[in-house]
Amino acid sequence: MTKKGPVPGSEFRRDPVSGDWILVASGRQKRPRAKVAHRDRLSSAVKECPFDDPQASGNGVPLLWLPHPKRTGSGEPDAKDWWVWIAPNKFPALRPHRDCPQIEGDGSYQRMSGVGFHEIIITRDHDRRVSEMTPEEAETVLYAYQERYRALQREPCIEYILIFHNQGPAAGATVYHPHSQLIALPIIPPDVSRSLEGSRTYYAAHGRCVHCSMLDWEREKKERVVYENDRFLVLSPFAPRVSYEMRIYPKKHESRFENADASDRLALSDALSVILRKIKKTMDDPDYNFFIHTAPAKATGPDYYHWHIEVLPHTSTWAGLELGTGIEVVAIPPEEAAGALRAAK
Amino acid sequence: MTKKGPVPGSEFRRDPVSGDWILVASGRQKRPRAKVAHRDRLSSAVKECPFDDPQASGNGVPLLWLPHPKRTGSGEPDAKDWWVWIAPNKFPALRPHRDCPQIEGDGSYQRMSGVGFHEIIITRDHDRRVSEMTPEEAETVLYAYQERYRALQREPCIEYILIFHNQGPAAGATVYHPHSQLIALPIIPPDVSRSLEGSRTYYAAHGRCVHCSMLDWEREKKERVVYENDRFLVLSPFAPRVSYEMRIYPKKHESRFENADASDRLALSDALSVILRKIKKTMDDPDYNFFIHTAPAKATGPDYYHWHIEVLPHTSTWAGLELGTGIEVVAIPPEEAAGALRAAK
Repeated sequence: MTKKGPVPGSEFRRDPVSGDWILVASGRQKRPRAKVAHRDRLSSAVKECPFDDPQASGNGVPLLWLPHPKRTGSGEPDAKDWWVWIAPNKFPALRPHRDCPQIEGDGSYQRMSGVGFHEIIITRDHDRRVSEMTPEEAETVLYAYQERYRALQREPCIEYILIFHNQGPAAGATVYHPHSQLIALPIIPPDVSRSLEGSRTYYAAHGRCVHCSMLDWEREKKERVVYENDRFLVLSPFAPRVSYEMRIYPKKHESRFENADASDRLALSDALSVILRKIKKTMDDPDYNFFIHTAPAKATGPDYYHWHIEVLPHTSTWAGLELGTGIEVVAIPPEEAAGALRAAK
Repeated sequence: MTKKGPVPGSEFRRDPVSGDWILVASGRQKRPRAKVAHRDRLSSAVKECPFDDPQASGNGVPLLWLPHPKRTGSGEPDAKDWWVWIAPNKFPALRPHRDCPQIEGDGSYQRMSGVGFHEIIITRDHDRRVSEMTPEEAETVLYAYQERYRALQREPCIEYILIFHNQGPAAGATVYHPHSQLIALPIIPPDVSRSLEGSRTYYAAHGRCVHCSMLDWEREKKERVVYENDRFLVLSPFAPRVSYEMRIYPKKHESRFENADASDRLALSDALSVILRKIKKTMDDPDYNFFIHTAPAKATGPDYYHWHIEVLPHTSTWAGLELGTGIEVVAIPPEEAAGALRAAK
């Protein structure tokens, strides 16, 4: 069962100078592997895996489970036939609560209790990643993402929902078995807020989505385009945050990932798998993160925003220069990264 | 000799949506150790060290060198007696140029050539860190920082100067021998810009420096104060970016690090050494970064800003949640971190 009420010690705090929110989530200390900050690798042993049999390992009653898209058994599928399994995170950074959190003042400071949802999305195969799934399998995962997105979007306190995937220890994964996570937040986070503001400003000035203008330019220039299919364009962004960063955009203007239909999801599965395989081959299987940026949960539209997926391979460490300035330094120009990935079969 | 002219392939690029600048610095790929992204440790062998004899290893003619503060030899000190040695970084992210860089448009994009200064500040001892120096030795390092700061502050294109220190491979260091770096930028970086804006807004509303208000509150509450001497206060910030983050503030309002006098520098040496030793002891010698946040190079005043040092131990990896939201998640509440560090002898 999901425990209700704020996580003990979990609270948002606002930096009194920059105004940005951070999250103190002290319950996360209790994760079995959380103490080992610099792991070379995670144990791939099935017997230690908490996700091979989520029910046995206490990953709760599922919030949602789906059978394999090509399930051949007769009769109604049973939970034992799960292929995607979504459960509350056992070590949540946030926890549901009846009441929406309020900003509380404390001298110069502002804080807010850590109310929200933190879920884990597990695929059945212990070794097979998204990039190794069939398009139908990956489409099922994307559909599961959407279902949980829509369920949580209706929750009264939720302002933003991020779905993300950490692959490998250098990318922050603490379990080997492939899994994604969903976090539903009572605030619009600072990075998203800035991108929304930039999109809104451009729209007001040009009457057009900034992402659509950028996609037109990229398709004309071609030097940063890595892959495209009938519905999605994958490119190495002009101003990346890490070397080999990739972004996947729907070609047709759309502010919300959750509006993608079955054909969109199949085309996205193709684009995501292709790009992850190209990264694996070109960069000797790096750890990576990917996440979905979509419009805020409660916004209508908005017309100025354009949803996308960002894929960030883990290639270097942010050091004093990056931490002290916010200027991310990348060693590989995106045009060079795009060329290398285009060439990878 | 310092090569002049923009570094090939080094340029600032602006994200068309968020408006933030990143830096593509492809020359940095050539660093001997740059390819090994996940190093457990750096070689401590003296024979491989590029900093034990900076002249022999091609670290140029020094921009500045200083003898040991307790030098006992007779006659004028010779460069061979160096104790602090500052030279241009052999693998610079930025390079000086006669002309200030201009923002150039390219479709929806903006770019600017990578003009600036990138220097390396080496202390003589191969093994001894800032935290292990005498107050007089550390004061000499801080004085050297200030001298280079003041020299570069006068350069026409320079808007912001960051001095930073990466300790250990997980914090981005590629050389074992202790060293700091200085980067002089032709822009005010995004993180600094947001803090300046927040400080200015508070000042306009309250007629007072936000940092001074915060320091008063912290001294009254005490729960986040870790150490203080007659001139500096060290605290675990209310909204940290990483577990065990520490900040060192001058108690007296001052916008500029470079205005610290000899007594300030001695008191700062004490505070910095104490806090780095407490971190080493409490956290089993983690890698860390520290950097100095001071007012922009060309600003007069400004009264609303308050310089300080941020110390960030490397305790975890930013994963999809942090990368996708900008909300940094910390596992250890700053009050708990402060308690643990206060108790460390």
